[in-house]
Amino acid sequence: MFMGASTKQGYDIAEKSREIVKSLIDDKTGHLTSKERAIVERIVHSTADPEYAEITRISGNFVQESLKSIRNEEDILTDINMVKVGINRYKGKVKCYIKDEKAVKIAKEYGITRASAAMRVAALEGFEGIVAIGNAPTALLEVLDLVQKGEMDVKSVIGVPVGFVGAAESKKALQETELPYLATEGPKGGTPVAVAAVNALINLDLGKV
Amino acid sequence: MFMGASTKQGYDIAEKSREIVKSLIDDKTGHLTSKERAIVERIVHSTADPEYAEITRISGNFVQESLKSIRNEEDILTDINMVKVGINRYKGKVKCYIKDEKAVKIAKEYGITRASAAMRVAALEGFEGIVAIGNAPTALLEVLDLVQKGEMDVKSVIGVPVGFVGAAESKKALQETELPYLATEGPKGGTPVAVAAVNALINLDLGKV
Repeated sequence: MFMGASTKQGYDIAEKSREIVKSLIDDKTGHLTSKERAIVERIVHSTADPEYAEITRISGNFVQESLKSIRNEEDILTDINMVKVGINRYKGKVKCYIKDEKAVKIAKEYGITRASAAMRVAALEGFEGIVAIGNAPTALLEVLDLVQKGEMDVKSVIGVPVGFVGAAESKKALQETELPYLATEGPKGGTPVAVAAVNALINLDLGKV
Repeated sequence: MFMGASTKQGYDIAEKSREIVKSLIDDKTGHLTSKERAIVERIVHSTADPEYAEITRISGNFVQESLKSIRNEEDILTDINMVKVGINRYKGKVKCYIKDEKAVKIAKEYGITRASAAMRVAALEGFEGIVAIGNAPTALLEVLDLVQKGEMDVKSVIGVPVGFVGAAESKKALQETELPYLATEGPKGGTPVAVAAVNALINLDLGKV
């Protein structure tokens, strides 16, 4: 089950990878708690990109609030289906509304992205839990807006949209809120980063670090 | 429809992103054909990581053979579901057998990864088309083995597994075959890279570059 492995061969690969990841980033993760370090290690393992040890930002209350939400089996809301299908061992529900009819309608009506409209649909459906955004900056900004208006009950946000247009700014905006967050600095991020963060939290909850 | 956008706002973001991507990598893509360049641009757009312009390798026959397979609406086989769900506008079928009962059985019986077993299942099912591996080096090596044994009919391979254990070596092995390929050098790669390459090919087939 470690690092997503489900067979002996998969486990051996994951274990060897973990040693390499540790050797690459141990000097950059000294300021983190052991749980935060486990999350960053999984992100570097999943991306093979040690830069994530330098650009990942985790608020002091992120791990605690996220684990509380996971323990209560609250929903996890993702911006796109690539994030949803990557979270494959959660006892609670993982939701994505990007293909929902209502999201398509709202996107057309307001001239916004479907990823953004999908966040509004989640709010209307009474979402409560962890938000994981791996792709669309517009979805992240929409969540911040819905939270500010008191229209969405968010326990923590994994905000790692990727791209050269708006992604860095949306992640800066997240870090300026009171929300428990995990975010990356700059344009980098993506669905594997969001998936790695969520799956690391699920493993932490199970006591598998 | 450009770069995956489906709304006016999405289109505007994608267009601005494309200009930035071009400015970042144009000096590194002079040796590529215009179609190869469109693929590399989409990979950099999807990852926000210009390094992919330097580490992406495309065989001379890759674009032509892949486009032929796409035009014939042959299957696209992925190693994990994250790649499958990212390919959302293909007229043909996108297949993934990692959760297939037969794959679970084969993995246990032979002590191999599920991703690897899933490639054997595809071969048994008579797969014919493009293989896109975004995660598991073991799946890529399995495909090369099946092709060499004459047990699998592969038209081209997008081989971009990610990780510090075996990924670089598996992509080297792919580049030493006669197969039309797109691969990355070193540990980096991942599901967004595989998805970007496939979706760029689908767009090229539709005449949308």
